[in-house]
Amino acid sequence: MSQIRDISLADEGRKKIDWVSNYMPVLSGIRRDFEKNKPFAGRKISLSIHLEAKTAYLCETLAAGGAEMYVTGCNPLSTQDDVASALVKGGMTVHAWHDAKADEYDEHIRQTVKIGPDIVIDDGGDLVGMLHNEFPELCGQVIGGCEETTTGVKRLIAMDGEGSLRFPMILVNNARSKHMFDNRYGTGQSVWDGINRTTNLLVAGKNVVISGYGWCGKGVAMRAKGLGARVTVTEVDPIAALEAVMDGFSVMPIAEAVEIGDIFVTTTGCRDIITEKEFYKMKDGAVLSNAGHFDLEVDVKTLKKIAVETKEQRRNIMGYRLNNGRWLSVLAEGRLVNIAAGDGHPTEIMDMSFAVQALSARLLAEGAASNKFGSQKIIPVPVEIDQEVALRKLNYMGCRIDSLSEAQKKYLESWKG
Amino acid sequence: MSQIRDISLADEGRKKIDWVSNYMPVLSGIRRDFEKNKPFAGRKISLSIHLEAKTAYLCETLAAGGAEMYVTGCNPLSTQDDVASALVKGGMTVHAWHDAKADEYDEHIRQTVKIGPDIVIDDGGDLVGMLHNEFPELCGQVIGGCEETTTGVKRLIAMDGEGSLRFPMILVNNARSKHMFDNRYGTGQSVWDGINRTTNLLVAGKNVVISGYGWCGKGVAMRAKGLGARVTVTEVDPIAALEAVMDGFSVMPIAEAVEIGDIFVTTTGCRDIITEKEFYKMKDGAVLSNAGHFDLEVDVKTLKKIAVETKEQRRNIMGYRLNNGRWLSVLAEGRLVNIAAGDGHPTEIMDMSFAVQALSARLLAEGAASNKFGSQKIIPVPVEIDQEVALRKLNYMGCRIDSLSEAQKKYLESWKG
Amino acid sequence: MSQIRDISLADEGRKKIDWVSNYMPVLSGIRRDFEKNKPFAGRKISLSIHLEAKTAYLCETLAAGGAEMYVTGCNPLSTQDDVASALVKGGMTVHAWHDAKADEYDEHIRQTVKIGPDIVIDDGGDLVGMLHNEFPELCGQVIGGCEETTTGVKRLIAMDGEGSLRFPMILVNNARSKHMFDNRYGTGQSVWDGINRTTNLLVAGKNVVISGYGWCGKGVAMRAKGLGARVTVTEVDPIAALEAVMDGFSVMPIAEAVEIGDIFVTTTGCRDIITEKEFYKMKDGAVLSNAGHFDLEVDVKTLKKIAVETKEQRRNIMGYRLNNGRWLSVLAEGRLVNIAAGDGHPTEIMDMSFAVQALSARLLAEGAASNKFGSQKIIPVPVEIDQEVALRKLNYMGCRIDSLSEAQKKYLESWKG
Amino acid sequence: MSQIRDISLADEGRKKIDWVSNYMPVLSGIRRDFEKNKPFAGRKISLSIHLEAKTAYLCETLAAGGAEMYVTGCNPLSTQDDVASALVKGGMTVHAWHDAKADEYDEHIRQTVKIGPDIVIDDGGDLVGMLHNEFPELCGQVIGGCEETTTGVKRLIAMDGEGSLRFPMILVNNARSKHMFDNRYGTGQSVWDGINRTTNLLVAGKNVVISGYGWCGKGVAMRAKGLGARVTVTEVDPIAALEAVMDGFSVMPIAEAVEIGDIFVTTTGCRDIITEKEFYKMKDGAVLSNAGHFDLEVDVKTLKKIAVETKEQRRNIMGYRLNNGRWLSVLAEGRLVNIAAGDGHPTEIMDMSFAVQALSARLLAEGAASNKFGSQKIIPVPVEIDQEVALRKLNYMGCRIDSLSEAQKKYLESWKG
Repeated sequence: MSQIRDISLADEGRKKIDWVSNYMPVLSGIRRDFEKNKPFAGRKISLSIHLEAKTAYLCETLAAGGAEMYVTGCNPLSTQDDVASALVKGGMTVHAWHDAKADEYDEHIRQTVKIGPDIVIDDGGDLVGMLHNEFPELCGQVIGGCEETTTGVKRLIAMDGEGSLRFPMILVNNARSKHMFDNRYGTGQSVWDGINRTTNLLVAGKNVVISGYGWCGKGVAMRAKGLGARVTVTEVDPIAALEAVMDGFSVMPIAEAVEIGDIFVTTTGCRDIITEKEFYKMKDGAVLSNAGHFDLEVDVKTLKKIAVETKEQRRNIMGYRLNNGRWLSVLAEGRLVNIAAGDGHPTEIMDMSFAVQALSARLLAEGAASNKFGSQKIIPVPVEIDQEVALRKLNYMGCRIDSLSEAQKKYLESWKG
Repeated sequence: MSQIRDISLADEGRKKIDWVSNYMPVLSGIRRDFEKNKPFAGRKISLSIHLEAKTAYLCETLAAGGAEMYVTGCNPLSTQDDVASALVKGGMTVHAWHDAKADEYDEHIRQTVKIGPDIVIDDGGDLVGMLHNEFPELCGQVIGGCEETTTGVKRLIAMDGEGSLRFPMILVNNARSKHMFDNRYGTGQSVWDGINRTTNLLVAGKNVVISGYGWCGKGVAMRAKGLGARVTVTEVDPIAALEAVMDGFSVMPIAEAVEIGDIFVTTTGCRDIITEKEFYKMKDGAVLSNAGHFDLEVDVKTLKKIAVETKEQRRNIMGYRLNNGRWLSVLAEGRLVNIAAGDGHPTEIMDMSFAVQALSARLLAEGAASNKFGSQKIIPVPVEIDQEVALRKLNYMGCRIDSLSEAQKKYLESWKG
Repeated sequence: MSQIRDISLADEGRKKIDWVSNYMPVLSGIRRDFEKNKPFAGRKISLSIHLEAKTAYLCETLAAGGAEMYVTGCNPLSTQDDVASALVKGGMTVHAWHDAKADEYDEHIRQTVKIGPDIVIDDGGDLVGMLHNEFPELCGQVIGGCEETTTGVKRLIAMDGEGSLRFPMILVNNARSKHMFDNRYGTGQSVWDGINRTTNLLVAGKNVVISGYGWCGKGVAMRAKGLGARVTVTEVDPIAALEAVMDGFSVMPIAEAVEIGDIFVTTTGCRDIITEKEFYKMKDGAVLSNAGHFDLEVDVKTLKKIAVETKEQRRNIMGYRLNNGRWLSVLAEGRLVNIAAGDGHPTEIMDMSFAVQALSARLLAEGAASNKFGSQKIIPVPVEIDQEVALRKLNYMGCRIDSLSEAQKKYLESWKG
Repeated sequence: MSQIRDISLADEGRKKIDWVSNYMPVLSGIRRDFEKNKPFAGRKISLSIHLEAKTAYLCETLAAGGAEMYVTGCNPLSTQDDVASALVKGGMTVHAWHDAKADEYDEHIRQTVKIGPDIVIDDGGDLVGMLHNEFPELCGQVIGGCEETTTGVKRLIAMDGEGSLRFPMILVNNARSKHMFDNRYGTGQSVWDGINRTTNLLVAGKNVVISGYGWCGKGVAMRAKGLGARVTVTEVDPIAALEAVMDGFSVMPIAEAVEIGDIFVTTTGCRDIITEKEFYKMKDGAVLSNAGHFDLEVDVKTLKKIAVETKEQRRNIMGYRLNNGRWLSVLAEGRLVNIAAGDGHPTEIMDMSFAVQALSARLLAEGAASNKFGSQKIIPVPVEIDQEVALRKLNYMGCRIDSLSEAQKKYLESWKG
């Protein structure tokens, strides 16, 4: 029995799903394969990803492969009710609604995992976490799972480090055709889409402060520069910091950056990046946003406490006045700005990420028989899947590439040069 | 008596106006002056500009200077009903609503000019055109006006060329602090904001075709490149075309460009840029949009006629299937995509453009007395206004500049070197 | 009788001229016309331009049109002796050598003008200046001249302002197909070519300070950014300064910029941009260079005086140690760094500039007969020449453009919309 | 007994070394440590690297640490005779001269290794190769070595794969603070420095074809774009190809790219990238260059054979006319264009690479005692060295970064979120 807001929104959701399907040719090709070969026949898949049109199309692709789908979101603000409705109308079980409260959110995941999945698909680790914490008895029957994002990968590695991970997880995020594109070009564009549509402010000439210069930070910085900003990066890793300098950006500690920044984007995957002592040093009118998985990077909780006045300044912008008279504007409550204040990553990027998801899920289904992974729990995406997704994508974009001749292969393998 | 959709939207509109006022420091400074000096006391100003929050703040600035304001939009799709309501609630007369039909749109302008304005502020020339065509008897009492955009300027010069312009018009668009910023950085960012939020498609790796390489086209191309696109420019002026080449873009005739383009943006200010014969050569899934003033650049009328199937693919995206089986997707019916599918230019840019508007309007009010323009009808923005706006803007951004020493001035004026 | 260093260098010079001729297709086309039509038959042309391979090819083009050529340089450091020799070997009269002392430089110009030219071609105004100052009696027979650069144009306008300009001068510099390309893309690339080859230092991550944000400054800044620098601009014009900000650069007074800069480039056309008080604030190891016409932008004269130690640090780099212990490194003695420490503008750029020169000179030759300029002394390059050069260039690059239909022309001329 | 060209050039070489030492603060800091601690006392180091000023400073740093230095080049065209002389004058043994013939080049390496080194430093693998092939008896006493470049690393891994590598080699190239900077920012700038100074041609508006989109290719492409080129990438790896597309570049097979390219740069580390069949399809005037380690990427040998006319067109540019009448211009005989037609990587970049070299060599010297590597032959640079070099570099550039709090570290290690 699904838990959604309003089934009457299904048509609007369907329209969105149809639109993105036009621009996801790799996943569409895989879907056609799945329809024929039914790799998931008889399997239950529990899935927790940002629930919007592109994810919905992944769900439909898996369902086309014979899977019985149990779907929930992975962030209370990213669930789109119309899309959820369209999935339910199409026959899936969905537990999710927009702006779910903390306990509702947990309950939605709980309902999604308690059915006892064969395969899990997770984004950030909440679903896998709950399976292990609340339903340890169900872990044994899970063939394996796929993890979508950096944060989830870090958690899985931590779990595996302490020996508590109970079934194999494929690190979809770590596929080159995923994280080098999704985290960089996807986040790069969608963060600015979210900020721009929400604020209607100019980026050119602004001091933009980006915390973290991993793939996400690189993408956000690259697009900020492309929009004319002066970019400042804060980092804890000296090599990443030096890369930022060489890319033409300023690098300084956050304590200094807060004094000059007009727009802030955190992308660290860590917590407490912008906290109480930073709030007090910020300029009047500073705009704060987060593009990391959890809403702990900008310490909004504390900001709420110390504010002497609070008001909604525009849709999705909450203004906080401090006792120094300055207003700080927080977008989407400090949650993932590209998802909670936009439509998430551009469609074509998710075409690649979800193609890796779909092929990795198929690998799990197949691997169940052969038990090919042995006792290994942390599974990298096989390089063949990685390359296949990229090659298909290139083909759909009309780009052809070269291949090595035998003489060249031999040359590359020889050391006598 | 105002004509608007729904006065109950006023609070939402007020919120929007308050938000932008925080990021328009130059206009706010001028407003404080106006409040003190009341330069428009006893004057009626008829104004026709894209009716959204930033324009509303211009209206309030003029009103603060003592003007009696009569306000309408300049594009049926750009009027925001909540903002219009907020102005009415604040005491102005507004004739405008979103998605007005052609005859309603005309009627709104008619009501706005028939009150017999002292000063007019126009964007595109419709208001000035109607004054001359339908109310020639009112032209005599008009002290003068200001024109906001390139298209309007072209029409004014054509009018003046045939001797039919009846009162002086200040070419606000031609101020350096306006068109070099608004048309370039403003259009550049807002066009992509509009396209991205409407389509959720990726720009990186796409073939983007931009027609016209004037200031608007330059801005749109610069930001497309900043978002990772491969940009192709079509032009009729060889020097602009060569500039595009040197800026790293491909240049080709539209007849060839239509075969490779994924996303199209027209910025020419002309008509019939993408027409029937081009439609048939386009790729399946091509996205068409316009950033020129009128909706004549992409010939949507003909597209509607030749389509064998039509459907709304997503909000503000109409899909047309041709008899060759391909779908073309038109954003915002081919109207100004940054306004009809977004919130228009970023706030800080309009701060400059509208500061020029406000100071130019004041000049008109003052000039009435001294009749300082003589018989001249086409009036450039005085360089002092231009420089003052830029200097104030720099100050608010915290940037200071140098000034010439006496020795340097002398050197620059001397030819003996 | 020519004055050059060493005729035996002619073959090396010939090689250089032949090389550039391959990449100057527009000028080569004009040369073929000139060979047939001999527009300069019986005319003497005195020319003072940076004497290197591309200029030499212009000289040969004019000679091919029948002109008797008298050639000198316009900067003591930019003359290349091998190229001068090749011209002499080809039959021209040349007075120039590399690193001429001030009095030698003057004498070279003197010898070039005293022959009584019909047409003059100048770069910076020294030749025209000497004609007026020392040979007023020869001015009467000069049909007219062409001026190549911004600095020269400023001086001509100053002369004309005081009524002292004695013959018409075509402002070649102001042609759109010249200054929008030469001053921007030409200077942009060649300045960094000069700096990089001279210093072997990294640009990425450096603080580069550019004084002046005109076309030259824009070009130098654009390429600095393209090389990964963090760019700071100093300006006196608020609008140009604001443009720099919107282009993503920092803007500040030179007094502050000197404290952070690693590499300095002056492009103002003014004097005394970096002077004694700035020197003392600079970082140890700062690199100073100039891309403006005269060597007065960095006050090297004073630097020499206040230095406590001086040494050549590398070819074309002079190091000065101040009494604060810091070393400052000046490239090419503060002369035009792209020419005095490089080979000047890229060849293809000068193809356009010199095509405008050649067609303008032809216009003068023809205009002599019809006296078509009346008493006007400051002559703009006719738009037809401008467009023709751009169109030819596009064709040689394989780029085709559109042209307006009759309906479009009509639309653009109409104001009724 | 050294073998060099001309000891009288030593002063010029000394000047060059002193210049770069000013801009290599990290290596200078290490030098001061070495002077105090003499980690190489009693050790002989044989070194084969591009012999120019920056390498010379590395040699002096090692010598300052007590090493007896035996030095040769690693490419016949990159050796600078003045620098070699300065080293000899300073007391080292050097076997190298510019433009050594193949047998001379081999002999120089031979003399450098036959002395029986304790530590070797290699660039490309020629020195290590000769040690194994010709002096197997000396391999036993080698503590270990360092390899500078991608090509050498590939050869070492191949050797180790067949079990023939006889002593441990540290993969200096693979340090993040080396290859992410040297191969990208270093190659990126220096390749264009070499091409620009050698050709004096414009990059803006040109079709630049880059083969290979590894770190070097990325750097060269990024700077080509920064100079205004339209960039086309050829690749064999689909993921790298897709990255190039998303970065805004065209991707196509070399067979198609040769028809549109104006300037070619190969960066693959493979052979036979541009061969006979490609030559015939190229445009007249096409410029060919290589930035890969060996001169096998552009098949110059074959080009020489099939050319119907050959001439030196400019210093370091050889022109070949094919029987189709077209001229192709090859820079620096197809050898590393940044080194053979320039001064190699920018100084500050080599500061990092050589700091890693110096610290890795020290590690070897120390490791000899503790035998800490066991039987492992392929040794990664320890992460502490990597981070230390980056951190020191940041400090010298005046950039400070943040560090993780205990709470943040804990958060990152925890999976319960």
